[in-house]
Amino acid sequence: MDSMENKSTKEYFQSYEDISVHRLMLDDNARTQAYKQAILSQVNYFSDKVVLDVGAGTGILSLFCAQAGARKVYAVEASRLSSLAERIVETNNFSHIIKVINNTVENVCLPEDEKVDVIVSEWMGFYLLHEGMLDSVLTARDKFLKPDGKLFPDTVSLYSAPCSLPKFYDHWEEFHGLDLSSLGDEERRLKGSQPDITEVNKDDLLASHQLVCELDLYKTSSKDLDSISSRQVFTVSREGRYQGVCIWFNCSFPSIDLDATRVVLSTSPHCQQTHWKQTVLVLPEEMYVIEGEPLAWELILERGGDDWRHYNIQCTLLDPEEEEHPVPCGCVLPKCCLIREIIDKHMQTLDSSHLGSQE
Amino acid sequence: MDSMENKSTKEYFQSYEDISVHRLMLDDNARTQAYKQAILSQVNYFSDKVVLDVGAGTGILSLFCAQAGARKVYAVEASRLSSLAERIVETNNFSHIIKVINNTVENVCLPEDEKVDVIVSEWMGFYLLHEGMLDSVLTARDKFLKPDGKLFPDTVSLYSAPCSLPKFYDHWEEFHGLDLSSLGDEERRLKGSQPDITEVNKDDLLASHQLVCELDLYKTSSKDLDSISSRQVFTVSREGRYQGVCIWFNCSFPSIDLDATRVVLSTSPHCQQTHWKQTVLVLPEEMYVIEGEPLAWELILERGGDDWRHYNIQCTLLDPEEEEHPVPCGCVLPKCCLIREIIDKHMQTLDSSHLGSQE
Repeated sequence: MDSMENKSTKEYFQSYEDISVHRLMLDDNARTQAYKQAILSQVNYFSDKVVLDVGAGTGILSLFCAQAGARKVYAVEASRLSSLAERIVETNNFSHIIKVINNTVENVCLPEDEKVDVIVSEWMGFYLLHEGMLDSVLTARDKFLKPDGKLFPDTVSLYSAPCSLPKFYDHWEEFHGLDLSSLGDEERRLKGSQPDITEVNKDDLLASHQLVCELDLYKTSSKDLDSISSRQVFTVSREGRYQGVCIWFNCSFPSIDLDATRVVLSTSPHCQQTHWKQTVLVLPEEMYVIEGEPLAWELILERGGDDWRHYNIQCTLLDPEEEEHPVPCGCVLPKCCLIREIIDKHMQTLDSSHLGSQE
Repeated sequence: MDSMENKSTKEYFQSYEDISVHRLMLDDNARTQAYKQAILSQVNYFSDKVVLDVGAGTGILSLFCAQAGARKVYAVEASRLSSLAERIVETNNFSHIIKVINNTVENVCLPEDEKVDVIVSEWMGFYLLHEGMLDSVLTARDKFLKPDGKLFPDTVSLYSAPCSLPKFYDHWEEFHGLDLSSLGDEERRLKGSQPDITEVNKDDLLASHQLVCELDLYKTSSKDLDSISSRQVFTVSREGRYQGVCIWFNCSFPSIDLDATRVVLSTSPHCQQTHWKQTVLVLPEEMYVIEGEPLAWELILERGGDDWRHYNIQCTLLDPEEEEHPVPCGCVLPKCCLIREIIDKHMQTLDSSHLGSQE
């Protein structure tokens, strides 16, 4: 770690000493409830397990694990918040279960080189990867997780979809009888230089979302996170003003107990809004798009040079005619229409032969 | 102005170059609508008037004045936002009416030493006085306002009331089946060092509010703003956990047109929430209070030493038995009960003599 990384890391941990950040995260009910459900719905699994909580903060996830019957929980928190976590653990009478450790997970040693059954962590940043905390979880996995150990969460996915952004465009065009569109222009010019964290209404999505990437956290390496890219093709499902690229993530938790269902924490515009909101790349110029129209772009997320906890997100609009489309594709391009027709015919043949055999 | 003030002033104006601050203010509908109504409901008055807009920002108030028929509007804006205001003025075809001036009102000179009929300004900060922008409005008044000129707004009042603060106290006591009260303790310890800007629910007020001060802006001087204090007595109207002191302000606009009503912009918990929210002094220890109980405190707002745009707010809880109570007072202290009894008797005597004369 060079001095730049040290500085960035110090500032990073200091930012989590702010209680209001923790209030925001705890009060994010979709987030807190997802972890609570993922853990407390599996008391058979958690019973007697050893858990490592990476970046424990106020200790809430450690407490859930203790409530679920864990034998031992190591709550590792590098910021000064660890002393608060300790007090909260005491208040809830879990001091015999939860050991709060004020250190980074990179530097921590567990007593007697103990290995753990479970790693819990809430490491997700804006657009999933901002903050680079997943690297610490992967380090913890390689150092401490038993071969059959579980990660909570264990799978994460990043999605994108084209959208309208009325609050950046239309909103100012008619404002109390005045035209403030210059304000919108200026705002978009400024937004153009960095992604915006904002709430996108599900009705403002213009096409079904596409997967940018899915990470199986048992297999992912830090190197995999340096650069993520995807070329994507969309078919417009609702005509409108195409003004931005909306990005969000889901993360899902393992279900090990027989009757447990897989819990998914989604930051999609279709779900209850979370403190992560959505990430939006605001297009410098809008385009009017119609139903069935194909859209395409290449999305590249790359770790920032100076600050490895930040990413540069680049979106290049592509000519959809030159891109490979999914099969079947619902767009209006002749090739996709033809394929659709062939598939339909084939399905009809299959149907009638199937009906024939029934007679 | 010494160098400290220069630095503070520079940073102050830079803070208003952030478009998102203006989005927040414009989208504060109570605020925008109050100014719009105060101005546009009086087109007879505004017609042909010369207006000065102090700290014009995006120029919205200047535009309202132009819409109301003003002959000339000087929109003075010291930050770089003035160029945006200029573009917005052009878009709305008011360039012949509104002249945007990129300067501080302290340094500006109007063409031919013109005097103005109206000064409009949205200068209010948190708890009214934060930011110290009122001083600039008073300077503008003394430099530019005609003797019979009007200030929009022209009267402001500061209020306070005792309140419960469930989000700082109760919220953490039972959180997803856990006791996070240590987090609440820590948060309150931190809040103790500075007032908090937060939304207080009207149902959490424990007594009718009292006036801290009322300022008639035609008469107020900058010196009056250096220190504001008030000793206040409250009678608890609803039993509950007394956990904080809630402060807010109203400001009201002149009604000059015959059929115009006086518009009041209120930031009270009883009204639609604004971006000013309420200012809260969180008590380090809560007290349980019952209906009729008297409460008293002294509130002192004093300009901060290093940064004259900031205030130190000090609240000293007083022994209500030693304070002078209003007459009549609804509290349970023997003296106030006695006075109430005497007044009641007196009113009965008046009533019966009044009834007697009717017979």
